[in-house]
Amino acid sequence: MAISFITLTTDFGTHDTFVGQMKGVILTIAPDVRIIDVTHSIPPQDIIAGALAIESALDAFASETIHVAVVDPGVGTRRAAIAVETNVGMFVGPDNGIFTAVLARVEQRRAVALTNTNYHHQTTCATFHGRDVFAPVAAHLALGTPLVQLGKPIEHLCMLDIPEPQTIGTDLALEVTGVDHFGNLITNLTRDHFDAWRCGVALATMCLSIGDQTITGIASTFADVAPNELVAYFGSTGRLQIAIRNGHAASHLGADQDRLDIRIGTGETNH
Amino acid sequence: MAISFITLTTDFGTHDTFVGQMKGVILTIAPDVRIIDVTHSIPPQDIIAGALAIESALDAFASETIHVAVVDPGVGTRRAAIAVETNVGMFVGPDNGIFTAVLARVEQRRAVALTNTNYHHQTTCATFHGRDVFAPVAAHLALGTPLVQLGKPIEHLCMLDIPEPQTIGTDLALEVTGVDHFGNLITNLTRDHFDAWRCGVALATMCLSIGDQTITGIASTFADVAPNELVAYFGSTGRLQIAIRNGHAASHLGADQDRLDIRIGTGETNH
Amino acid sequence: MAISFITLTTDFGTHDTFVGQMKGVILTIAPDVRIIDVTHSIPPQDIIAGALAIESALDAFASETIHVAVVDPGVGTRRAAIAVETNVGMFVGPDNGIFTAVLARVEQRRAVALTNTNYHHQTTCATFHGRDVFAPVAAHLALGTPLVQLGKPIEHLCMLDIPEPQTIGTDLALEVTGVDHFGNLITNLTRDHFDAWRCGVALATMCLSIGDQTITGIASTFADVAPNELVAYFGSTGRLQIAIRNGHAASHLGADQDRLDIRIGTGETNH
Repeated sequence: MAISFITLTTDFGTHDTFVGQMKGVILTIAPDVRIIDVTHSIPPQDIIAGALAIESALDAFASETIHVAVVDPGVGTRRAAIAVETNVGMFVGPDNGIFTAVLARVEQRRAVALTNTNYHHQTTCATFHGRDVFAPVAAHLALGTPLVQLGKPIEHLCMLDIPEPQTIGTDLALEVTGVDHFGNLITNLTRDHFDAWRCGVALATMCLSIGDQTITGIASTFADVAPNELVAYFGSTGRLQIAIRNGHAASHLGADQDRLDIRIGTGETNH
Repeated sequence: MAISFITLTTDFGTHDTFVGQMKGVILTIAPDVRIIDVTHSIPPQDIIAGALAIESALDAFASETIHVAVVDPGVGTRRAAIAVETNVGMFVGPDNGIFTAVLARVEQRRAVALTNTNYHHQTTCATFHGRDVFAPVAAHLALGTPLVQLGKPIEHLCMLDIPEPQTIGTDLALEVTGVDHFGNLITNLTRDHFDAWRCGVALATMCLSIGDQTITGIASTFADVAPNELVAYFGSTGRLQIAIRNGHAASHLGADQDRLDIRIGTGETNH
Repeated sequence: MAISFITLTTDFGTHDTFVGQMKGVILTIAPDVRIIDVTHSIPPQDIIAGALAIESALDAFASETIHVAVVDPGVGTRRAAIAVETNVGMFVGPDNGIFTAVLARVEQRRAVALTNTNYHHQTTCATFHGRDVFAPVAAHLALGTPLVQLGKPIEHLCMLDIPEPQTIGTDLALEVTGVDHFGNLITNLTRDHFDAWRCGVALATMCLSIGDQTITGIASTFADVAPNELVAYFGSTGRLQIAIRNGHAASHLGADQDRLDIRIGTGETNH
């Protein structure tokens, strides 16, 4: 049998034993599976942050991978639990929009609601679906259990509005969706969106304003600017990022990145 | 050979290389073993917190699992190092009470003091038994080395007093033993203790007081109350927990949960 | 095929998906490889801290291990990416001195610059060599790809000055290179350096001054002193450490350990 991979993306943190318990349940069912932690540091109950994290990591994994995501403020309510089969991997988690970003770019999919409790972990606890529903279902998928055995087909999945860049005149207004460990700001502008918008205008003439600061040109890497200078580039998330070379952009630009006014223009003011 | 599993529960944190070193020693001896981190965030030298963490995670693992625990303020003193074989798994760590909670519920056990240095990691360092004693012993157990080869049988193991709920009139007085990542308070009341005490009185009539707040009824899940309301339920730890639905109970109830006066009564005041 | 091991030491933290992405790329290429996290908590861009972390963990791993290190302030500049084959393991990372401490003690080595992009992860991103260069190269080494296929031989590797203890009269002046999770101070004095310097003088007569505090004797373990007393000993890092038994030395000695005046003398004042 081929080795199967299961990734975990949660808001559980690593202080408690939650993640260890999920792994125990998975490996008890499917001892050969390989488990990869994507992150357990999604801010508690922040579904959009979870959706963007899964999107950022997806391309690093083969399409046979099973991605489990648990950011689940509705655990124990009537929200469905789902498994989704796609051409870029399988996805298991709550039906609350956590897979919005990845499902937006799949070519085909089939989904079931996880109603077949034969594939769940038997417990008297109703508050830990990560361990009791999603972990065992992912393990059974890894063993080759067909999707349709896990529950009833479900057509409409919950999808969230992930904020898109807004067109304002000839500019795009961006939002910061996250700040990484190095203080780099991650915006909501994807490369595809950017390329469609700029219509071939050169990267070097682009003009980015961030509050009262400006950056000229989209760089391809940090070395395109001097140390301690602001730089905008498409980072490993696939979205436009703003950094300070060898510095911490978030500290430099102030704590309240959510409200920063960020605009990008082509720098071609006269046509 | 069957795949063997070793879990790790420590107070080492993940900033240093301690945990990585333990894994290196284990895998050098037993390359096929699967290692699962339960948690490395036990507060430094807090043996009772370690004991409760191991208890909370135990049911997620098969009974062939080898559980290594290192919360070890007495490393380098004359406290024994032990391995214990039970019907719910093997346990390897210092003889300081770290296994109190799990050993309280095993049906049988055999224990040895880890006196056979042939199974230890050779080093000149005397302060890192996690790497030099517990990791290699667990790896050898995973390879099938019989318990008796690891050292001398030991009958009396160190057991700690884990605080039990106190009966006060017709009420039970509870203590908070921990706060999880979501701010949920974990009390010292187990479901067994609760069921023996309540004598069939309905969950819905139970009355819980937490400082100056009250909760009526024991819920089965968060959805039993409205958002932002306090809720008491038996959580994934197997003990009564107090949460705020979609909120952070610890912040709401004040920083000093250790001293909160928590009482549970049956709500039947007249008999 | 033998099981291969890859260790990861980075300054990526675990909040983002960086580490998960590296693992995804490794396992997509080499599904059987075992990955061990050494630490992801190197202070951002602190190459010397990274070098010392790798050194501290090295002895726990077999010599077939592939060690990947990514503390890389120069990513995207013209610094080389390297793989080094030695008698104590393989090393993959940026050529910025991150391997200084381990390469100082190897007996032989061969190195290449990672110029063969056939072994890199295909991407449009230029800022994440951890995922796009070091991870896939390590995976290919694990599969048995010969070093020479990965790029051009490189003779001179970047080496950093790791601060050495300074001889001042008959004393040695030490520096603190790190503080571990328990608050223990790690100095830059190795056991070899110490043994060469002390010329057989007994450990018990050694005199250590730390600011205005003094310690008499080098202990072998914490139990050599009473609880809450300062103790100096060679710890699991292989370097002299200063601790408080069952306490937190860094808090006790003040926040600014970098500037502490630490001296060790033989205690033999009259010859």
